Amino acid sequence: MRADELAAPYPTVQLGTPAIEAARLLAGQDLPGLIVLDGKGYPFTVLAGTQVLRMAIPQYCQDDPALAAVIDEQAADLFLRELGDRTVAQTLPGHSRDLAVVAGDATVLEIAALMARTGVPLVAVVHKDKTLMGAVTLDALLDRLLAL
Amino acid sequence: MRADELAAPYPTVQLGTPAIEAARLLAGQDLPGLIVLDGKGYPFTVLAGTQVLRMAIPQYCQDDPALAAVIDEQAADLFLRELGDRTVAQTLPGHSRDLAVVAGDATVLEIAALMARTGVPLVAVVHKDKTLMGAVTLDALLDRLLAL
Repeated sequence: MRADELAAPYPTVQLGTPAIEAARLLAGQDLPGLIVLDGKGYPFTVLAGTQVLRMAIPQYCQDDPALAAVIDEQAADLFLRELGDRTVAQTLPGHSRDLAVVAGDATVLEIAALMARTGVPLVAVVHKDKTLMGAVTLDALLDRLLAL
Repeated sequence: MRADELAAPYPTVQLGTPAIEAARLLAGQDLPGLIVLDGKGYPFTVLAGTQVLRMAIPQYCQDDPALAAVIDEQAADLFLRELGDRTVAQTLPGHSRDLAVVAGDATVLEIAALMARTGVPLVAVVHKDKTLMGAVTLDALLDRLLAL
């Protein structure tokens, strides 16, 4: 079993997509993460849901958990203000060396090892012409491995 | 909004649960992660789905991605053999300092910051008597924050 047999259609966002729209896509479809495409349709990065969440948390709350404990009522407002009018590109974390992207001939074990290493429960599968074929989620991978 | 208002029932496993059963629970219910309880019913650890997956990948494949690329046909067999008859306790990764567990009065921002920091899209919420109240998933948190 190879990546091209496991790849399924998966929603994507662009670098220029408003960050708030990306967060809504993640939440609205209960996705395990997001595939961010560059201008040529190639995966620029693949983010775990927790990395998307991080974009929306004011830096001072990430730096100081004690601060997060005393800010309560306006959490949703803070969150939306933090995302504001920024695009996905403007909120992206520092680039990871280990991109969750594989070619169609990647083995199941390669995909699993990549997910385990990156902590991203989602792998983008690309065609040889550098366009997106689809994605393999952790759930889909486990379902196949465990024959559920 | 506080953790005790967001907490919902969530399936758990014990330290003595067979690892294969834990993986099946994760995959079968499409869970974002697993809450592992100790003998007293307190969360011993909370694992992201990718950390559960890591338990099932032979160490030599994690160490050497090139090896994972050449092993194909028997992926499911390897995976099941790796989990074998081991319990969750026997397959757990090294203990993290930053446990994804909060008290009922934790704020939404505390929960969000904890998820972002640990990379675990799931937080266990505990009662004052140290028993499990429930859990908040990343999806549930985003749904509330984005008012979906």
